[in-house]
Amino acid sequence: MTLLHTIYLIAITAEAMSGAIMGMRKGMDLFGICLLGSVTALGGGTARDILLGHYPVGWIANPEYLTFTIGAAIVTGFIARHLHHLRMVFLLVDGLGLVAFTVIGCDVAMSMGSHPSIVVLAGVITGIFGGLLRDMLCTQVPMVLQRELYATVALFTGLLYVALLHAGIGSNSASLLALGSGFLFRVLAVAFHWRLPSFQDKDIRGLD
Amino acid sequence: MTLLHTIYLIAITAEAMSGAIMGMRKGMDLFGICLLGSVTALGGGTARDILLGHYPVGWIANPEYLTFTIGAAIVTGFIARHLHHLRMVFLLVDGLGLVAFTVIGCDVAMSMGSHPSIVVLAGVITGIFGGLLRDMLCTQVPMVLQRELYATVALFTGLLYVALLHAGIGSNSASLLALGSGFLFRVLAVAFHWRLPSFQDKDIRGLD
Amino acid sequence: MTLLHTIYLIAITAEAMSGAIMGMRKGMDLFGICLLGSVTALGGGTARDILLGHYPVGWIANPEYLTFTIGAAIVTGFIARHLHHLRMVFLLVDGLGLVAFTVIGCDVAMSMGSHPSIVVLAGVITGIFGGLLRDMLCTQVPMVLQRELYATVALFTGLLYVALLHAGIGSNSASLLALGSGFLFRVLAVAFHWRLPSFQDKDIRGLD
Repeated sequence: MTLLHTIYLIAITAEAMSGAIMGMRKGMDLFGICLLGSVTALGGGTARDILLGHYPVGWIANPEYLTFTIGAAIVTGFIARHLHHLRMVFLLVDGLGLVAFTVIGCDVAMSMGSHPSIVVLAGVITGIFGGLLRDMLCTQVPMVLQRELYATVALFTGLLYVALLHAGIGSNSASLLALGSGFLFRVLAVAFHWRLPSFQDKDIRGLD
Repeated sequence: MTLLHTIYLIAITAEAMSGAIMGMRKGMDLFGICLLGSVTALGGGTARDILLGHYPVGWIANPEYLTFTIGAAIVTGFIARHLHHLRMVFLLVDGLGLVAFTVIGCDVAMSMGSHPSIVVLAGVITGIFGGLLRDMLCTQVPMVLQRELYATVALFTGLLYVALLHAGIGSNSASLLALGSGFLFRVLAVAFHWRLPSFQDKDIRGLD
Repeated sequence: MTLLHTIYLIAITAEAMSGAIMGMRKGMDLFGICLLGSVTALGGGTARDILLGHYPVGWIANPEYLTFTIGAAIVTGFIARHLHHLRMVFLLVDGLGLVAFTVIGCDVAMSMGSHPSIVVLAGVITGIFGGLLRDMLCTQVPMVLQRELYATVALFTGLLYVALLHAGIGSNSASLLALGSGFLFRVLAVAFHWRLPSFQDKDIRGLD
């Protein structure tokens, strides 16, 4: 599907830039920000492919993806100081990427005949593992486990997509509907600071 | 073997609860504690399967395992403050899980015709990698590399199991003997604070 | 190729010792330093094999590699305080290991018919991922992403090796030339403190 593929290429570019920016903050050199950008952009799909045993892994079958992520990281290294004007653009592209990664991840698992619950989970893993690996390489507790409805958006998008397909909706319509609804959910979650319940000191008092 | 499978399900539930509790301490949200609980419970088997190329990975072939781990994490989120009464139960179930994971890991590697040393190592990896990944996601130096005879218990259990099988003992008897001895070793190690030698400042003075 | 294999065995021994030393600094016990040493020495090849789907993974096919890494880690535990006399030897062996790992990694990817860019990347991953995993297990931002021309040496070695082969140079000559040039590059980079550009506060001001 061409639209999904276009969104994917835009998304990995944006994710690579976000990874590169975090690498710069950690004092990484040019190689470091290229690696961190690529891991952020391609780590979710890589984790999914390895867990599913889906070989060859995406960027190994399509090395041109690396051109996008490495190019984006290098450009970011030189223009990062001007990028704060674009924060809103980033947030939107990142949201678009999250739902596109999720739908693509579901497609891969479905093509392997996985159980529906694994299909949804493959979508969630594709959506969130890039950011998770980025944070681990920077030795931060992964943001996706702490804040905002990021993983929840991926879960919602995957569940909706699988449900629509099971209801007999065509593949193109289902992915467009899932992309649109998931993206809207993400925008609303950011705009209104929606969060999942997390836990207070009183919840864990007495545990050692 | 039904007994081993029952112990396995109890063990992944207990491990998921321990992961969830650590996630709560790190301020994770509900999604975070479900993921951390699942990684703690299933990460060892997943690492083993990926390293051995043993596909499909356990929880992908048996998605119902995720019901146990996610369910256990959610329940933990709401009752954690009452769990400190159960610390001793946890410690015992965790010890049982460690030896059960180890024996199961050995079985998987044996079914692939691996070298005996790899069979033992597959057991150890199954036993300890869940906790190791949990600690890495929480950006802590993995406890298993620092404290107590945790990995050593897995190594002992795996070595004993493989030795018993090579001595011609039947599979059921060998796993029961290995489970029992490994569990006893773990209980004694905890009760008497047994430790492996670690290293003091004087050992590394002068290294930069 | 016997020379390359000999260099490989020396290199995994040296890398295991460097991992063990870092484990001792983190207060790990004997098991911890064996695991950290083995991950440092064999983690690069393992990451490459898993990413390429190249099974069985190196040390599973050749468990005797573990004898080298575990043996080296244990010996290090007892003689570490005397090793600071050998710092220069370490640095040289580590450099030799880096280029040997890289050439071996390229060979593995080529044997699978990978795209030339993936061949080079497989070399780089083999060269640097051991140290990267070691640092992540110790919860440090990986040194290889921050300092010195370490990854760059791997990239240079891999590019040169692939270019020489494409130019029709025989396999043995190409690997010797790549090993020699890469090693010289590494020695010069360390001697003259060459670095890649990294980024200053002014480059990332205004980013949140």
